[in-house]
Amino acid sequence: MDVLEAIFTRRSVRRYERRYVSDELVRKVLEAAIYAPSSKNAQPWEFIVIRNKETKERLAELAPYGKFLREAPVVIAVVTDPAKSPRFHEVDGACAVQNLALAAHALGLATCWIGTMDREAAKPLLGVPPERNLLTVLPLGYPAERPPRPWRRPLSEIAYSEKYGLR
Amino acid sequence: MDVLEAIFTRRSVRRYERRYVSDELVRKVLEAAIYAPSSKNAQPWEFIVIRNKETKERLAELAPYGKFLREAPVVIAVVTDPAKSPRFHEVDGACAVQNLALAAHALGLATCWIGTMDREAAKPLLGVPPERNLLTVLPLGYPAERPPRPWRRPLSEIAYSEKYGLR
Repeated sequence: MDVLEAIFTRRSVRRYERRYVSDELVRKVLEAAIYAPSSKNAQPWEFIVIRNKETKERLAELAPYGKFLREAPVVIAVVTDPAKSPRFHEVDGACAVQNLALAAHALGLATCWIGTMDREAAKPLLGVPPERNLLTVLPLGYPAERPPRPWRRPLSEIAYSEKYGLR
Repeated sequence: MDVLEAIFTRRSVRRYERRYVSDELVRKVLEAAIYAPSSKNAQPWEFIVIRNKETKERLAELAPYGKFLREAPVVIAVVTDPAKSPRFHEVDGACAVQNLALAAHALGLATCWIGTMDREAAKPLLGVPPERNLLTVLPLGYPAERPPRPWRRPLSEIAYSEKYGLR
């Protein structure tokens, strides 16, 4: 799939088919993730691939807008390390997630950021050390919905020339 | 260009050709940027497109590892709004930047995150209001170097199964 097509047709998907996602596909999206850039190439990211039904259920309970986590065949927890990159660990992790999302889309899969979540409860559930940061948990699966193109503020409102506010 | 190819061959580029980058290409990479997802679709991002030589020179002085900003034909400042998304404005902005970087690469251009910078000095220079956040300034141009594939920690070291640390 063409890059620009992938960027414009990727969607945040909240309904997934009950269809197995192979380890090989999971590995491919993770390989894409780690090719994101990171400040000083610190690569402050780690990933937990979750298939356990009970763990997914518990995560769904901790995410008020992520109830659909329980239906995704795979959930990928993205962990970042503030010690490796105090200022940029989340920003670098986000770039990795965007690579992952685009790669997933190109492979016929879909995902969705789960941001709002009781992270401090989710960390011990996943065995994440207290000093690490749980950036997001991402459902991964074959999409069972096709959300419409989302609204975007046009560039004419948010892109300036030379100085902030100048058009 | 194929998505996965773009993800794996994109590089952070620090040398640019002295070649004009059209407004049309700039518009294309910004359109790609704003198709990133954002928490609650808040779209907490704005962009300043800078071609002014003196502004680029001043930005280069404020970025210890970004001296090459002065040589890029275009610099794009990425501004995020903590009021729109207190927890996620930088994470959402980072997703937009990764889209921008991949689109640039597909269009024959290149960019590079400039993270370390005297932001509080750069903001008034660009007219950015104090309450907004300057996430990064991105040089944009035709690459005049082809950096090698960067080192990555292998997935075998950073991807776990079911629980953090388990392989």
